[in-house]
Amino acid sequence: MPKMLLYFILATVLAQADFGDAVKNNKIYFLRSRGDNGEWCYCSSWQYGVDTNNIIGWKTIPDECELHVGRYMLGARYREDSKVVTKEAYLYAKSYPLLGDGKDVWIFGTDEVALSNLPYYLKHGFGVKPYDSTSFHEWILTENAPALPKSLKLYKRLLSLGFKIIFLSGRREYERSAVENTLKIAGYRTWEQVIFKDPGYYGPARDYKSAERKKLEEAGYRIAGNIGDQWSDLLGTNAGSRTFKLPNPMYYVS
Amino acid sequence: MPKMLLYFILATVLAQADFGDAVKNNKIYFLRSRGDNGEWCYCSSWQYGVDTNNIIGWKTIPDECELHVGRYMLGARYREDSKVVTKEAYLYAKSYPLLGDGKDVWIFGTDEVALSNLPYYLKHGFGVKPYDSTSFHEWILTENAPALPKSLKLYKRLLSLGFKIIFLSGRREYERSAVENTLKIAGYRTWEQVIFKDPGYYGPARDYKSAERKKLEEAGYRIAGNIGDQWSDLLGTNAGSRTFKLPNPMYYVS
Repeated sequence: MPKMLLYFILATVLAQADFGDAVKNNKIYFLRSRGDNGEWCYCSSWQYGVDTNNIIGWKTIPDECELHVGRYMLGARYREDSKVVTKEAYLYAKSYPLLGDGKDVWIFGTDEVALSNLPYYLKHGFGVKPYDSTSFHEWILTENAPALPKSLKLYKRLLSLGFKIIFLSGRREYERSAVENTLKIAGYRTWEQVIFKDPGYYGPARDYKSAERKKLEEAGYRIAGNIGDQWSDLLGTNAGSRTFKLPNPMYYVS
Repeated sequence: MPKMLLYFILATVLAQADFGDAVKNNKIYFLRSRGDNGEWCYCSSWQYGVDTNNIIGWKTIPDECELHVGRYMLGARYREDSKVVTKEAYLYAKSYPLLGDGKDVWIFGTDEVALSNLPYYLKHGFGVKPYDSTSFHEWILTENAPALPKSLKLYKRLLSLGFKIIFLSGRREYERSAVENTLKIAGYRTWEQVIFKDPGYYGPARDYKSAERKKLEEAGYRIAGNIGDQWSDLLGTNAGSRTFKLPNPMYYVS
């Protein structure tokens, strides 16, 4: 679109704002965007709240956001958002001073990071139903989870740069065989380690992941980057020199 | 909208996805949302990258996102996003066990948190131009910055609950008089402290804010909540029992 046309549209939008009065009265009068119904606004803002770790500890997505989340997950935005994140990760990785001793590692989550459970969530309301460990475990055993395309691309580029890859999974040790098969089928052909949760551990993922990363650093690894879909992957201790947050509006892991 | 209609629309969307094949081939074929042009997608995803601290260290918004950011800042989404954040903050605050000794504090940033510089940024391309300390300082001296409406509402509710308010500003000590006047005019009538940056400090805001919060805790304050617009307000040390991140796609402070 020509720049003049953009400015014309912007001017039209701003003309409605009457910002001069707003300043005089020390108040902001927000515009109502045309074409946004309340539902769209609320679900988009709910998603903002989730993305930014403002809304925490939720068990299901709001009922009224099923359509919104479904459209997001299957649409252009999820792909574009993932692209922005993995592009930043690659730009950072390119400038990272690897020592070349095989100890520079990059951590990937599995679910909604390396792998996508979209085929499962497509049949389970995109997070509108509470987490069902039985049916999710059955889905894992099918070994059908595809790669998140942008993550696979980042993985390949990181390998080319010389990073070792460590998958730090929220799945449990007894799912190792299925998850490792799934990773291979999806295109993740090599790795330094895949780390799984002890089947008896029911504490916060944040503590489990922090403890595992601490063990890695104690073993001499340097965590250059860490990419996850949950804030519990990225906060906590030993998080890595830089962290990257992929979108996931379908479920929350504390 | 009736639920059946929602499902009909979703089914229509999903029919295009041909997800069965996607599963078989272990690939995800994302839909292209109709009506999204590439520019819209990119600026929305750029904003996602900024909101989530994936894109850091930027000096200006992308040229092509001026219209997008302008429309966001003046439109329903900014208002709704701010509402979601301050609502979560209030829900948390209501459940917080105050000790009633006047030491339970809540930290607010000033710019784009308590106060809005939208009247300034409206005339300066919503962040498309590099930060100009001279004209921004002149703007501060006008004392015309309005309150961010949702923040003012949260402030009043927190006072009612018995919290003391501390403003931790990125502005400098020689701007104290103008900023305190602006806060009062905008409706913030009382506070425990307003903390300003030493005019000689040019290090990261994150370190300055961490150090000031540490001093507060050493003085016996308990930081129940901390609301900011920059991740540098919320990461670092002594961040508070919970942190809340308001949107700001106009500028970045490290």
